[in-house]
Amino acid sequence: MADDLKKGLEGVLVAESSLSHIDGDEGTLIYRGYAIEDLAREASYEEVLYLLWYGELPTHDELDSFTERMVAERAVDEDVLATAEALATADAEPMAALRTVVSQLSVTDPDGETDPEDREATLAKSRRLTAKIPTIIAAFDRYRDDDEPVEPREDLSHAANFLYMLNGEEPDEIAEETFDAALVLHADHGLNASTFSAMVTASTLSDVHSAVTSAIGTLKGGLHGGANQNVMEMLKEVDDSDKDPVKWARDALDSGRRVAGFGHRVYEVKDPRAYILGEFSESLAEEAGEMKWYDYSVAIEEFMSEEKGIAPNVDFYSATTYYQMGIPIDLFTPIFALSRVGGWTAHVTEQYEDNRIMRPRARYVGDKNQEFVPIDER
Amino acid sequence: MADDLKKGLEGVLVAESSLSHIDGDEGTLIYRGYAIEDLAREASYEEVLYLLWYGELPTHDELDSFTERMVAERAVDEDVLATAEALATADAEPMAALRTVVSQLSVTDPDGETDPEDREATLAKSRRLTAKIPTIIAAFDRYRDDDEPVEPREDLSHAANFLYMLNGEEPDEIAEETFDAALVLHADHGLNASTFSAMVTASTLSDVHSAVTSAIGTLKGGLHGGANQNVMEMLKEVDDSDKDPVKWARDALDSGRRVAGFGHRVYEVKDPRAYILGEFSESLAEEAGEMKWYDYSVAIEEFMSEEKGIAPNVDFYSATTYYQMGIPIDLFTPIFALSRVGGWTAHVTEQYEDNRIMRPRARYVGDKNQEFVPIDER
Repeated sequence: MADDLKKGLEGVLVAESSLSHIDGDEGTLIYRGYAIEDLAREASYEEVLYLLWYGELPTHDELDSFTERMVAERAVDEDVLATAEALATADAEPMAALRTVVSQLSVTDPDGETDPEDREATLAKSRRLTAKIPTIIAAFDRYRDDDEPVEPREDLSHAANFLYMLNGEEPDEIAEETFDAALVLHADHGLNASTFSAMVTASTLSDVHSAVTSAIGTLKGGLHGGANQNVMEMLKEVDDSDKDPVKWARDALDSGRRVAGFGHRVYEVKDPRAYILGEFSESLAEEAGEMKWYDYSVAIEEFMSEEKGIAPNVDFYSATTYYQMGIPIDLFTPIFALSRVGGWTAHVTEQYEDNRIMRPRARYVGDKNQEFVPIDER
Repeated sequence: MADDLKKGLEGVLVAESSLSHIDGDEGTLIYRGYAIEDLAREASYEEVLYLLWYGELPTHDELDSFTERMVAERAVDEDVLATAEALATADAEPMAALRTVVSQLSVTDPDGETDPEDREATLAKSRRLTAKIPTIIAAFDRYRDDDEPVEPREDLSHAANFLYMLNGEEPDEIAEETFDAALVLHADHGLNASTFSAMVTASTLSDVHSAVTSAIGTLKGGLHGGANQNVMEMLKEVDDSDKDPVKWARDALDSGRRVAGFGHRVYEVKDPRAYILGEFSESLAEEAGEMKWYDYSVAIEEFMSEEKGIAPNVDFYSATTYYQMGIPIDLFTPIFALSRVGGWTAHVTEQYEDNRIMRPRARYVGDKNQEFVPIDER
């Protein structure tokens, strides 16, 4: 029916895309036809970026050349660092800080206000944004700890360089591998709300920086990127109370509280990314000799499956993965952005190539014939 | 059909709203049931803000109390001015500057990260944003002219205070009245792309500042807020060439160039706002004793009506209206934002009250079964 109200746009097809596909019944996710399991375990985040932006997996030579262009863009200007420092000093919420600095980056981008239909310029801007976002997040975090930012290194992978800038020391192999896999797993996921918001912004032929700024603001919300922070807060509540995850979850359900990290609009079964991150979370726990966070998660997953018949989503195991790597909880959502910017910009590129301005309608439910009375007679 | 592709979401109902209603066949626009003609001619922008946010037109006392709260929020912090100055010095595109400063404003907002479901806090943030945006635009414009910003005055209307801060002197009565009417005419317009982007961002329960930042980035695009700038550039081209608007328009059509300011997804007939702004544009021309800009517009309107059967939209006459008031052309879109922020925040408030996350789908048209080959074997 033409007059059907599509609140939340559930099931509405707004674009054609060849970037990622979710089969919610089977519980599978592919990027350009490649299974997420293969990509997470065998491809680097840089390879996945190349796949999303250029349509195929790179050869060694293509990857070398691509990586060279990426690493050259990691550094940010003094002005950008000054803004990050001011935001850290003002105790800005990290996603508000990232949104502001990314918006500012457009001003000094050499392709800042180029025609959105110039594909090369769009990809160049996407590359710069993706290269610089880790530098911004790490600098912001260090400023708020009264540390100086650590300059990016050109000899480290995207994953390792971020952890190096964040902590001031090179990550070990397991940390790098885990973080790289997490970046691959978060890089794209169909038309989730933040990706869709980037497309809506791009649909007026606005620029890539505007689109990514919108996406960051959208990811910031508690129903989207905020979810893995909520999962970790929940697990910490479990640990701070009876250390009984099942009791905690039962109490939460009884009191109508939401158990974070479960259910997804698209998946009817367990999110394939949750399987993979669950394994990484378990490995990190074993390596550290401290199983409690992983064990709490498994217990809650089993309880929710039996009690409600719902399965965990990607946020459920990314929470303990990041936490066990020593990443501050309020950086979980910025790290989501650090990865997803690859997907956002790929969808923006698709949008520009076959654009139509996004202009839906509302069903008007207000008064229709109010007689105007001037203020002196009201 | 469930599988229909809805590119651009044309005709798709995504929400219920009691804010504004467009009858595209009749060419009418109402805000909460009041005809736009009455509001533009007899109500101030402040009255319209009150109407959009609180559901009814204010009494004198209500308006006094509301105005008092608004004017108290006009000033911005030194930090915000410093950012505006840095952006002006860096020669930032004005909408990129506004997007960045508005994003930054969240950090110092006393309700910055409050629960989006707290209606009072949402309205307080909306009020602060609406009060401060004129101050930001005027300061940015003065900084880039190497002038010092002019502090807001509390005794002037929203419209007059902006013109005062922009030019350093109080506007005359006609300028104030015209600008106030233009603000009323642009305050809301259903689910246009920028308003919709604000709703998408808000639908994850992200904050008002994120939503308005998204909307500014979306309005920035050439297919949306950029249109009245394009109209003025066109009229200046006419003036700089043969001063023959019909010849210019005919040449443009012949060479496949777009004539800016015509057509609208929703209106089948002439946009009611274009009638009203056309009258203001004519009055300004008569007052100045220089009819050429208005005359060019009328000639192009008549030509396009005869030749293509299409009527002008709001952008067509806002261009000459602002230009004849001495407003720099690249501030036309920021001024659109200065007004529309009232509608954006009203729709965000509605979205929070009946929220569902916006999560549409794409039709996947890529490969489905790619066999992964590790990089060493590619």
